[in-house]
Amino acid sequence: MIVQTQTVTFDTELRLQSGATLGPITVAYETYGTLNEDHSNAILICHAWSGDAHVAGRHSPDDPKSGWWDEAVGPGKAFDTDKYFVVCSNVIGGCSGSTGPASINPQTGNPYGLSFPIVTIADMVEVQRWLMDYLGLAQWLTVVGGSMGGMQALQWAVSYPERMRSTMVLAATASLSPQSIALSEVARQAIYADPNWNHGDYYDKTPPNAGLAVARMIGHITFLSDESMRAKFGRRLTNEKYGYSFDTEFEVEGYLRYRGNAFTKRFDANAFLYLSKSMDYFDLSYGQPSLASAFKHITDTHFLVVSYTSDWLYPSRQSKELVRALLQNGINVTYVEIESNYGHDAFLLEVERLAELTHDFLSRFTTPAHPSNGRAAQTKLPTDLAMNI
Amino acid sequence: MIVQTQTVTFDTELRLQSGATLGPITVAYETYGTLNEDHSNAILICHAWSGDAHVAGRHSPDDPKSGWWDEAVGPGKAFDTDKYFVVCSNVIGGCSGSTGPASINPQTGNPYGLSFPIVTIADMVEVQRWLMDYLGLAQWLTVVGGSMGGMQALQWAVSYPERMRSTMVLAATASLSPQSIALSEVARQAIYADPNWNHGDYYDKTPPNAGLAVARMIGHITFLSDESMRAKFGRRLTNEKYGYSFDTEFEVEGYLRYRGNAFTKRFDANAFLYLSKSMDYFDLSYGQPSLASAFKHITDTHFLVVSYTSDWLYPSRQSKELVRALLQNGINVTYVEIESNYGHDAFLLEVERLAELTHDFLSRFTTPAHPSNGRAAQTKLPTDLAMNI
Repeated sequence: MIVQTQTVTFDTELRLQSGATLGPITVAYETYGTLNEDHSNAILICHAWSGDAHVAGRHSPDDPKSGWWDEAVGPGKAFDTDKYFVVCSNVIGGCSGSTGPASINPQTGNPYGLSFPIVTIADMVEVQRWLMDYLGLAQWLTVVGGSMGGMQALQWAVSYPERMRSTMVLAATASLSPQSIALSEVARQAIYADPNWNHGDYYDKTPPNAGLAVARMIGHITFLSDESMRAKFGRRLTNEKYGYSFDTEFEVEGYLRYRGNAFTKRFDANAFLYLSKSMDYFDLSYGQPSLASAFKHITDTHFLVVSYTSDWLYPSRQSKELVRALLQNGINVTYVEIESNYGHDAFLLEVERLAELTHDFLSRFTTPAHPSNGRAAQTKLPTDLAMNI
Repeated sequence: MIVQTQTVTFDTELRLQSGATLGPITVAYETYGTLNEDHSNAILICHAWSGDAHVAGRHSPDDPKSGWWDEAVGPGKAFDTDKYFVVCSNVIGGCSGSTGPASINPQTGNPYGLSFPIVTIADMVEVQRWLMDYLGLAQWLTVVGGSMGGMQALQWAVSYPERMRSTMVLAATASLSPQSIALSEVARQAIYADPNWNHGDYYDKTPPNAGLAVARMIGHITFLSDESMRAKFGRRLTNEKYGYSFDTEFEVEGYLRYRGNAFTKRFDANAFLYLSKSMDYFDLSYGQPSLASAFKHITDTHFLVVSYTSDWLYPSRQSKELVRALLQNGINVTYVEIESNYGHDAFLLEVERLAELTHDFLSRFTTPAHPSNGRAAQTKLPTDLAMNI
């Protein structure tokens, strides 16, 4: 599957949640499959922290690397591009084609750096809605995402429930726990501590790669689980015996160093900071009397909420809280807790289970007569998957 | 209780586990209470990563701060200094009075820096044994420690079982998991990434405080639990509303920044590195066919192993593995899993439960006729405390 990243620039200003404005705004996006005649097969995939618009396929026949969720998106896969028209766009605030802190500030002719405004998950969704209108789409069949992508999927349902039939929220949360905020903050501090960061002004200088690598290593540990690290690395050494030095002694150390350094080649430190803040700020209950009241305007949008047993970054506890709040509004929600050792990364890796769930969940909407009853707990999923909450 | 830190310098060389040598070696220590006539009431307390010899009391009447475990050590407390003669010494490799990387290398007249050799938990214990001989003690009533202190307590039982009647191992492990090694490594990388670290050569320059603060913040998150952070901070803001900036927005961020910065005023970055490596290397099964075989020479030493339900750094799973290995040798071991929300820090905070356990455990040895039968699971502890493993 060969795809091209496309871009569109909206020459208007977006009023952000913070009150600041941002514009013009460029959006990088990719599409896969064909839009059907009645426009009922469009799916929006929202990417996570380090993702981008390139969700699947390759950019050329000799492209060595496929998109970040190629296992799940393509002909015959969970998001079957023979059946669905799939859209994925890069979030604003990032660094992979859409407007972010590394973009040129039209008012100065220089990169924004820290003059880029704080953007929230709701701001990202707003720009995705502009793209939706630009593509001439009235309604998504589903909006799906994992982790930060799951936050966007949730925000979509709160902001534009009438523009979507359903949402699939994987390994996400309605708000970060203080432990997750703490881990975010330490990762940011690692970047701030790098003198090359220079208060975000480094685009014509050496970038703060050392700080960014440490930040990414922290993130990487939170994406794995204790179990998966034991299975993958154990206490295996890089050499036969202890070397008694500060060199890489354990395989897990070498892996982290490699992953941290590799990340600096493809990611912008300021974008890392902005995206981490967007997740800290994300809290659907902010300014509401309760989380449940955030969902009070939702009537016909069906939810699939999926969590993973070994995910300690956004644990099942949080998904259950979310599901309770949805049920309090009589919203149609199916909750599945998948047994997995992969930790937070499970949402990317457990594609077989995801394919089954997606097939069953979306088939509700692809039968011609769909009785939308706005009631909870309607499900075609095997009962062993639907956990008690 | 007013105490003074004392020092003794051993003018000999220690052959380290790595094969390198270190000497002369200075040891900082404190003692509390009075040694009884038959020398049967001596207790060694081993400190954790950021601890020191000053376990309890104050250094002067107007000293604003008491020792790091003052809640547990003193007249009438868990380690009752009216009954016991308590000793605590600073580990080698640290920065609180005993020889470490900030000490002067007698061969150069300059601080060791990275020319300081890697020291292991067994090396620390060896120096504590020198101190024991120097103090004229034949046998400890018990050797007790939490976290890195618990590793020393375990190592004592492996290296010198005949020199102790019992050991109390709190919130510790026989070897770090790859997740814990990964967290250690990221903390070290944060220090390496600080240009002021300068490969450990900074003692006459600005120290790498930014890197050390980040390293400490990572550690601090691992000492708490998800539950305790929710109870302590939740998502409480420092101001009334979101400020949409990179300033401290959540209380948990402010707390971490404060703790990270405060740590740099009392700790040496190189010592942080050396102590973190000593824990990574600690593995009682290293060079052994199994963990159980590490304990094969132990006959009369009684073990109390305590873990805490919300400790995710050294989880109960690891304590249970340890207990199984002890039981395979027919060693007398009591295992207690304490229900606590405090995470790894619980070993410092759950002092009431600890006082009960200590009282019951040590009373075995303070009755005159003690039948040492070398069999497992002899216990006077309430049965509800002794968990199934």
